[in-house]
Amino acid sequence: MKNTFGESVSVTLFGESHGIAIGAILDGMAPGIDVDEDFIAHQMNLRRSVSSLSTARKEADVVHIVSGVVNGKTTGTPITFIIQNGDQHSRDYEKMKTIARPGHADYTAFCKYHGFSDTRGGGHFSGRITAGLVAAGAVAIQALKKHGIHIGTHIAKCAGVSDRGFDNMKDDIALLNAQSFAVLDEKQGEHMKEAIAKAKAEGDSVGGILETAVIGFPEGVGEPWFDTLESMLSHALFSVPAVKGVEFGDGFALANMKGSTANDNFRIENDVITTETNHNGGILGGISNGMPILFRAAIKPTPSIYKEQKTVNFGTNENTDLVIKGRHDPAIVHRARVVVDSVTALVLCDMLALRFGTDYLQNGGKI
Amino acid sequence: MKNTFGESVSVTLFGESHGIAIGAILDGMAPGIDVDEDFIAHQMNLRRSVSSLSTARKEADVVHIVSGVVNGKTTGTPITFIIQNGDQHSRDYEKMKTIARPGHADYTAFCKYHGFSDTRGGGHFSGRITAGLVAAGAVAIQALKKHGIHIGTHIAKCAGVSDRGFDNMKDDIALLNAQSFAVLDEKQGEHMKEAIAKAKAEGDSVGGILETAVIGFPEGVGEPWFDTLESMLSHALFSVPAVKGVEFGDGFALANMKGSTANDNFRIENDVITTETNHNGGILGGISNGMPILFRAAIKPTPSIYKEQKTVNFGTNENTDLVIKGRHDPAIVHRARVVVDSVTALVLCDMLALRFGTDYLQNGGKI
Amino acid sequence: MKNTFGESVSVTLFGESHGIAIGAILDGMAPGIDVDEDFIAHQMNLRRSVSSLSTARKEADVVHIVSGVVNGKTTGTPITFIIQNGDQHSRDYEKMKTIARPGHADYTAFCKYHGFSDTRGGGHFSGRITAGLVAAGAVAIQALKKHGIHIGTHIAKCAGVSDRGFDNMKDDIALLNAQSFAVLDEKQGEHMKEAIAKAKAEGDSVGGILETAVIGFPEGVGEPWFDTLESMLSHALFSVPAVKGVEFGDGFALANMKGSTANDNFRIENDVITTETNHNGGILGGISNGMPILFRAAIKPTPSIYKEQKTVNFGTNENTDLVIKGRHDPAIVHRARVVVDSVTALVLCDMLALRFGTDYLQNGGKI
Amino acid sequence: MKNTFGESVSVTLFGESHGIAIGAILDGMAPGIDVDEDFIAHQMNLRRSVSSLSTARKEADVVHIVSGVVNGKTTGTPITFIIQNGDQHSRDYEKMKTIARPGHADYTAFCKYHGFSDTRGGGHFSGRITAGLVAAGAVAIQALKKHGIHIGTHIAKCAGVSDRGFDNMKDDIALLNAQSFAVLDEKQGEHMKEAIAKAKAEGDSVGGILETAVIGFPEGVGEPWFDTLESMLSHALFSVPAVKGVEFGDGFALANMKGSTANDNFRIENDVITTETNHNGGILGGISNGMPILFRAAIKPTPSIYKEQKTVNFGTNENTDLVIKGRHDPAIVHRARVVVDSVTALVLCDMLALRFGTDYLQNGGKI
Repeated sequence: MKNTFGESVSVTLFGESHGIAIGAILDGMAPGIDVDEDFIAHQMNLRRSVSSLSTARKEADVVHIVSGVVNGKTTGTPITFIIQNGDQHSRDYEKMKTIARPGHADYTAFCKYHGFSDTRGGGHFSGRITAGLVAAGAVAIQALKKHGIHIGTHIAKCAGVSDRGFDNMKDDIALLNAQSFAVLDEKQGEHMKEAIAKAKAEGDSVGGILETAVIGFPEGVGEPWFDTLESMLSHALFSVPAVKGVEFGDGFALANMKGSTANDNFRIENDVITTETNHNGGILGGISNGMPILFRAAIKPTPSIYKEQKTVNFGTNENTDLVIKGRHDPAIVHRARVVVDSVTALVLCDMLALRFGTDYLQNGGKI
Repeated sequence: MKNTFGESVSVTLFGESHGIAIGAILDGMAPGIDVDEDFIAHQMNLRRSVSSLSTARKEADVVHIVSGVVNGKTTGTPITFIIQNGDQHSRDYEKMKTIARPGHADYTAFCKYHGFSDTRGGGHFSGRITAGLVAAGAVAIQALKKHGIHIGTHIAKCAGVSDRGFDNMKDDIALLNAQSFAVLDEKQGEHMKEAIAKAKAEGDSVGGILETAVIGFPEGVGEPWFDTLESMLSHALFSVPAVKGVEFGDGFALANMKGSTANDNFRIENDVITTETNHNGGILGGISNGMPILFRAAIKPTPSIYKEQKTVNFGTNENTDLVIKGRHDPAIVHRARVVVDSVTALVLCDMLALRFGTDYLQNGGKI
Repeated sequence: MKNTFGESVSVTLFGESHGIAIGAILDGMAPGIDVDEDFIAHQMNLRRSVSSLSTARKEADVVHIVSGVVNGKTTGTPITFIIQNGDQHSRDYEKMKTIARPGHADYTAFCKYHGFSDTRGGGHFSGRITAGLVAAGAVAIQALKKHGIHIGTHIAKCAGVSDRGFDNMKDDIALLNAQSFAVLDEKQGEHMKEAIAKAKAEGDSVGGILETAVIGFPEGVGEPWFDTLESMLSHALFSVPAVKGVEFGDGFALANMKGSTANDNFRIENDVITTETNHNGGILGGISNGMPILFRAAIKPTPSIYKEQKTVNFGTNENTDLVIKGRHDPAIVHRARVVVDSVTALVLCDMLALRFGTDYLQNGGKI
Repeated sequence: MKNTFGESVSVTLFGESHGIAIGAILDGMAPGIDVDEDFIAHQMNLRRSVSSLSTARKEADVVHIVSGVVNGKTTGTPITFIIQNGDQHSRDYEKMKTIARPGHADYTAFCKYHGFSDTRGGGHFSGRITAGLVAAGAVAIQALKKHGIHIGTHIAKCAGVSDRGFDNMKDDIALLNAQSFAVLDEKQGEHMKEAIAKAKAEGDSVGGILETAVIGFPEGVGEPWFDTLESMLSHALFSVPAVKGVEFGDGFALANMKGSTANDNFRIENDVITTETNHNGGILGGISNGMPILFRAAIKPTPSIYKEQKTVNFGTNENTDLVIKGRHDPAIVHRARVVVDSVTALVLCDMLALRFGTDYLQNGGKI
């Protein structure tokens, strides 16, 4: 399968940056789940994040649901989200058709599609395609929320500035989901924004690290081999543009620990089994243990920068210099946050449906 | 799918640590590929790595190929590898049946399988199950080698000691594949072994980081969304026991770079397009660009330690103290190396077959 | 997966009969394939087949391609077909919401979706959803045609009237693809139409048998177990509404033959291997043998009839009588023909891409 | 995927007719299901059906379960069935290596595997490979039985002789499952056996039709498109060797009916909804309706016959005459019966697990 992910709950993405429309199909969600179009719009806004920090592209990004929802509830059949493309300056891209922007997919797309793919604005590789993911993810996020499963992501690091870690997870998640620039320490967030603005002024860009917590997820979900919970989440996370690293729990830091530190001791109280620490990020042997699921994703700096770069023209097979014009973001880490939340929710809905059946997340009775 | 991975080339794992046999089925390999049983045995030895550093379990680990190979060549139909289990001390485990070893899958297995799973020696969650992966991977590794695709993994870090980085990749890969404790700098390897021995003496364990390079892999392989090359590799890597982090190219370090540094400039010479640097690890937009594929996997310290630990008995719902007896490794990072090579080879064979057809890796003509 | 089919080339269907729009996503087609919108419109017309025989629903059925095609050629990324729904009389259906029309999916949809699915006009179960399949199939049919693979289907039987069998396959296929009521013997076609008209006058409906031939398909495609060519084709065919039987070659008639008759003798001439007969329909051991692929699909009579029927109201749990009003077809066999051609083409494109790689059907060079 | 079928519950087949061993892996069965090795042996015997009617190959067909079962219950992890091959006369086949037996897969295997596949006794294409399916199916059949889901198949027709149809389904199914030559009318069974013996005497072979009934299967299972219950069952059935046709309910006979006859009227009594007739075989819109699931599979006559046949030697590219020696069956329809039951059970277990979760069929409490 190519642009589809998930077995019981799946999402299919389509569209190109400067085509007629982009969107997604969300299939397999239980019937009877509330679809809150305001929340979808809220999530879309988080992704667009139009501000001094971000791209000047001004898309309305109105999500049209053309199937799968009746009277504000999922029908159980495919939900189709369509977002018209409006603000297109395709001429900007025509002359760059065969010039490989460093760090972008232009050259690899050429290798794969032999020059037939849509190159305008990155085409099907554009970060804009995540808009469909976010629309689909919004439905998944709310379905999980109704079952007490909450997802929150903060910018743990950006341009060298670190946020504080999670403390009271429930409160922290609520806090993050109310923010457009998601940090736990507001002051550190301001420092990040300053660093982003500085990079922009230099014609450069910055990256960052997103840290995600999921609370309320039941134990016993995931497979011992291949479809471990970590495998499924990382599979989806690594298809979010610019993600170059994923770690669960203490991740790479575990490599430096002793076993006596890394092991999370189990404790039982009132018949509830928890661990004293959570270095393993809520997953043992590929299966959830009921503790918060914790992971971090590394976001590389936006490859579109204003500085002159050396590259090749693969149409003429010549070396060339390149100065990218037009709008582009000095950072996308704050926008990628909602994409990470979205793919997380979609994977978790799929894993829950596979484990507990297709009606599991249904919130409502019979007709 | 549960214990099966791959679409065109797939592997299925079976068996329990103290059951009758373990093994794997490798399906979809092109017909006519040489199967070198000596090389399989070599790889099995790397995984067992019986030494002062490792577990005392003395399995012969003889791989029986019971289908899919005729006259030393793949037939194109499923190849079944069976490894008999010999050295079983199941009584050691019976009394621990409901005691959750911290850092292990005992408790999550119980949540998923409701007490019916085989608990002896970790059962189906045991690292021993990777023996089947290694056997299957050995065939894949050699098929790739015949096509000029070489895979090498070194212990980039262990117990706080760092190896040098890759330099001349071809030579380095050859060097690594001749070693049982795979490091590029022999002296650093000695320091690592000392640190492992020290941890062992303390009844503790250590982790590490494995770094892998793949050279000769063609450009244009991978999907833009969901089945990116990074997604597929990480999916497989995160099902290797103890892997808690995966990063491509400079990975998490990219989060601190500026775009002007992180971007890899393209250059063309003699009609061959390369990049000057390889911060992106040979993958852009989810698709290979012809440069070496580079990634790192974080291995947590072995959860089995001799020190007393606090945990629960989930059979009686009581807190308890635990001292694990029997053999176990103070480190598995050096043994996990060949498992990482194996899953890498299996994923790459699958991606190549999906991209270029099922005969792509065939090395030989018609009958 | 639910509303998606195919591994390398896949199709996803969405929409409800009386929703805003219906459509399909075709993913994985090779880049550079010509997309002929006139041919798509032609196929859509075959499916609608507005005539005295068919439903009065007058949809323009204009197919909008919103992604995946640039300059009339496939890009290699998902192709999205959207067809707006226009002519909706949803009130007709509101009062029937919980009345199970015999032979329809109303009751089973209720069992699966607990009353949340769109019930207007059959919702997602409507034959109208095949419009998306036909649009996607049109691209696949033309891609195959460029490679010399031709598909033709005729109404082998309808309302008890039989068409003649295939004779000169190439000519017959060309003949069929130029017809809206696809028969090889025009006179028999007239008899079928009369029989359909008679059933209509009685408020009743009729079924039929569609017979399909594929010529030019290469040998060596299909898997020995599970993904046999017959398995894949039947999987797709049985999701075409009203199909209740599928047979390959002589199918059920083989059950009455002796082996000495049923076996197709091989012959070689000019190094080309063929069989003297084709009782096995071009498939042996699940794999194509280079002979024409032949199969037949049984289409049950349209369940919507004007006669009074006995049924239940599953909302009130009462028995009731039902007289269906509104438009409906006395036969769909002539319309189902193009749907059968479409799913056939889609399955064959998928099997070819899996076997020979994703570029196999590409018709054009590099940029 | 190639030799693997199923999403939540899957089966993987391996082995060649004259290799070391054949077998299957059954993955995804709920934990805690009873595994009755006597019943497995019983089913294996039904498949072997050593008698005057069948092949002289005398394999013990002892099934070794090497993983996935502890204390007679499924663990929830992969169950591996291994059957050693004993009675091999490989020399018989060596000289026929490149001679295409008409009706067999020899030539298509050559096209696909380029001469590398195991040709002895049909290799991986041999009907013998169904032994693994039957072992896996036996576990599935018993898991379903515990939940009141019963499967029965009879030889509806063989060599032109017809059995009576199903009457009291529960009794008929019980009757069939106690028979080695499964017919509802014993006398007709004798006529069939006479006809088979006559064909054998003539050096010829016969085919037949198997009819299957499933009772107790819950309503609401199946997908509207692509993964309809009919699609999934036919997918599996068409990978049973020699199956060339599959029909549900009245199948091809529906093509000749009027809608007023074909429609099954619904009735409700004591809040239980049933249909008065069952022309649709328990499936509407691809989804089960709670009525018995009914289907028929056409089995072609055994292609191995003693009569001289014309064929080609694809090694030398010459026409040749062929007289097949050695043992072979004049009919396999009576042996295919248990294979059909097995794949039916496996598909139904998968569909139930996808619909209701992986624990659905579990028969037992917690530890």
